Amino acid sequence: MTVRTHLEHAAAAAELLAPLAERLTDPSRSGVWPVDAENSPLDRILAEDVTSPISLPRFANSQMDGYAVRAVDLAAASADNPVRLPVGPTSAAGDPVGTIAPGTASPVMTGAAVPDGADAVVPIEQCDPAHFVGIGGGTHDAPAGTTVAFRAPVESGTFVRAVGTDIREGALLLPAGTRLGPAQLGSLAAAGVPLVRVQNPVRVLVLSTGHELRMPGIRLDPVADSGAIYDSNSAMMAAAVMAAGATAVTASAPDDAPAVVDAIEQHPDVDLVVTTGGVSAGAFEVVRDALAPLGVEFGPVAMQPGGPQGLGTAVLPSGRRMPVLAFPGNPVSALVSFELFLRPLLRGFAGLPAQRRTERGALAHPVTSPPARHQVRRGTVHADGSVEVGAPSSHLLHAYATANALVHLPVGVGSLPAGAEVDYWRIDD
Amino acid sequence: MTVRTHLEHAAAAAELLAPLAERLTDPSRSGVWPVDAENSPLDRILAEDVTSPISLPRFANSQMDGYAVRAVDLAAASADNPVRLPVGPTSAAGDPVGTIAPGTASPVMTGAAVPDGADAVVPIEQCDPAHFVGIGGGTHDAPAGTTVAFRAPVESGTFVRAVGTDIREGALLLPAGTRLGPAQLGSLAAAGVPLVRVQNPVRVLVLSTGHELRMPGIRLDPVADSGAIYDSNSAMMAAAVMAAGATAVTASAPDDAPAVVDAIEQHPDVDLVVTTGGVSAGAFEVVRDALAPLGVEFGPVAMQPGGPQGLGTAVLPSGRRMPVLAFPGNPVSALVSFELFLRPLLRGFAGLPAQRRTERGALAHPVTSPPARHQVRRGTVHADGSVEVGAPSSHLLHAYATANALVHLPVGVGSLPAGAEVDYWRIDD
Repeated sequence: MTVRTHLEHAAAAAELLAPLAERLTDPSRSGVWPVDAENSPLDRILAEDVTSPISLPRFANSQMDGYAVRAVDLAAASADNPVRLPVGPTSAAGDPVGTIAPGTASPVMTGAAVPDGADAVVPIEQCDPAHFVGIGGGTHDAPAGTTVAFRAPVESGTFVRAVGTDIREGALLLPAGTRLGPAQLGSLAAAGVPLVRVQNPVRVLVLSTGHELRMPGIRLDPVADSGAIYDSNSAMMAAAVMAAGATAVTASAPDDAPAVVDAIEQHPDVDLVVTTGGVSAGAFEVVRDALAPLGVEFGPVAMQPGGPQGLGTAVLPSGRRMPVLAFPGNPVSALVSFELFLRPLLRGFAGLPAQRRTERGALAHPVTSPPARHQVRRGTVHADGSVEVGAPSSHLLHAYATANALVHLPVGVGSLPAGAEVDYWRIDD
Repeated sequence: MTVRTHLEHAAAAAELLAPLAERLTDPSRSGVWPVDAENSPLDRILAEDVTSPISLPRFANSQMDGYAVRAVDLAAASADNPVRLPVGPTSAAGDPVGTIAPGTASPVMTGAAVPDGADAVVPIEQCDPAHFVGIGGGTHDAPAGTTVAFRAPVESGTFVRAVGTDIREGALLLPAGTRLGPAQLGSLAAAGVPLVRVQNPVRVLVLSTGHELRMPGIRLDPVADSGAIYDSNSAMMAAAVMAAGATAVTASAPDDAPAVVDAIEQHPDVDLVVTTGGVSAGAFEVVRDALAPLGVEFGPVAMQPGGPQGLGTAVLPSGRRMPVLAFPGNPVSALVSFELFLRPLLRGFAGLPAQRRTERGALAHPVTSPPARHQVRRGTVHADGSVEVGAPSSHLLHAYATANALVHLPVGVGSLPAGAEVDYWRIDD
């Protein structure tokens, strides 16, 4: 692998994982979930088209609180000569669909069935009296003899929501591939769909390598562990994977190539593996040593941080073929690599907007950058829109954790003065 | 409550829920979570400041694969007169911190400890030979007699990451109120913090009312249920609450005021109640009937959909005071109400950007809107940026589910020609 640009490497990652998109729609890779409130498939992707089992609305219903009428009965109404009609049975929400007698008006509530025979609703505030009389407070129908007057004709269809105007029985309600947000779940529930088949999320094995790693919380021996560090990549990369809509399992392997291969073999159910560490130009590069012989390519990408990268399909001793993205071990380098090479793909699989929105702002101070590399700096976009850029060193994870933007200084940029416009991504969303 | 603008109503909702912000930071409202990969407090909010138990880096380490040296030993080096030094013990990642003998050079790998006494690292590609000799593949240290030459002096500190340059022991690592994303979790893990106290999410009771509601999947009797509808608000509003970073429990109450009050009393552990239905001008408005006497105000908001609204603190028979937002029952009206009045507040509590980003685009066709109301239409922003606006009727939930934007037609707008610019919110994120 020769020196690639970060865009070329991102394209290679997309090509590597492209077959996964098809596999996610496979029935064996999906599951059935209830469309309910407590155990919701919120944010899952429909694995198959859903057609509507009913028409919506399933009965003509009223858009207003008012009186259901036959438009023909009000044809002669005017302010000077109102038409007065006897009040018939009330239609409240949930009442079975009734029938209107010609020459009568039925109180009808918003969402309640418009009685058969009625073809328009006159809002209560246009009627005389402009409020319901004799109903409510436990009384469903107005007493016999109650009347209501109308001062204008009404067009047939007025304030009536006709059957099937939202969706017709048998029509495509939501296509396969739809991400289920609140409106989509509401629409499924409204159509009476109790269960949906949804894709299972992409499963990622996050594999941290290095015998220098200790679990957070473990006491470090002042001498024996004087060169040890706490493992931050496992928690961080798993969170990054989950935040991108996939699921993560983690494993760690010591600096031993067979152990790395073995850790991957022990997770046959994952869709891809992300490793951190062991990919640079040092003398002890366990991931490169383990996976290069299996077909993963390692080489430099013209970016900073995240220069050393590995990518490809590992053909494991078991014969399984496993897509691998091998990121540098430095947490800042690993997370920037994730941002550029994996996050967009995982979010795409999850039905989320793949790319962060690129915004522009003016530098608060001068910056320098290696001209041969695309530099991704952690920075702060201030309330006034000015962009403060943090130090470039890739060990500054705490600085990353308090930044709100990734600032892009592209290839060709050696230095920029204060006030120069730069592209950035907000990362505090 | 007189006619409010939607902005006035949103401000009233913010005022209603403001006391909650303080309560969320209460120790009794928080819990301790492990900073690990499998059971991560991803997206939770820190309930207290976290200081760093160690300095990071905790030992001086190398930014490069190369040779650790004493800068003073290379002071005389030049291309014509390289300085050749014997190679000392190797420092690989995880090795205890060693000591360099004056006048020697130690192989050091990226991230590995720079030996005591060394103050600079020369990258391997600038050395002669430009690769490590005699180490790797199981061999830790170069054989005695191995040497390496340097063709230039090096400044003290070069490529050395000094102790505490990311964060110092005892310094504030992350302040209370920080939302824990991948970088924050990585930073906590790197500092060896095993447990954090995080806020519990806001708990919302989603209360759907109306005896017309049936559970999705239940068979509807053609006669008895001819005016019944499937309950979509429970699943939809619970999902909306969860998507905004809160937790939801659901309940439903028939059209009976005491039952509504009772359903709220049965959930003493929620922070607020959202009701749907029973708030308009009809004769049977169970939420209004139940909660107006307890102190919730009901009245019109100058918006469409979502005109009838209720809001306030219900003083329950038990004496408990419960904040209530009462939305209309129509699912489109309920979800638009949620978007305007509750989503920003819940997202704020969850540490997420509160407001949707307002974007502008040109109408693909003419539209009309009631000039006295702020109309929120469901629409589609096309790839070319043009904005197609769907029909206004609030029963079109399927249309909402296939829209990608909410289009704002403010008060004062009666009609707009094709090509006019309108504000919209993307909702497909």
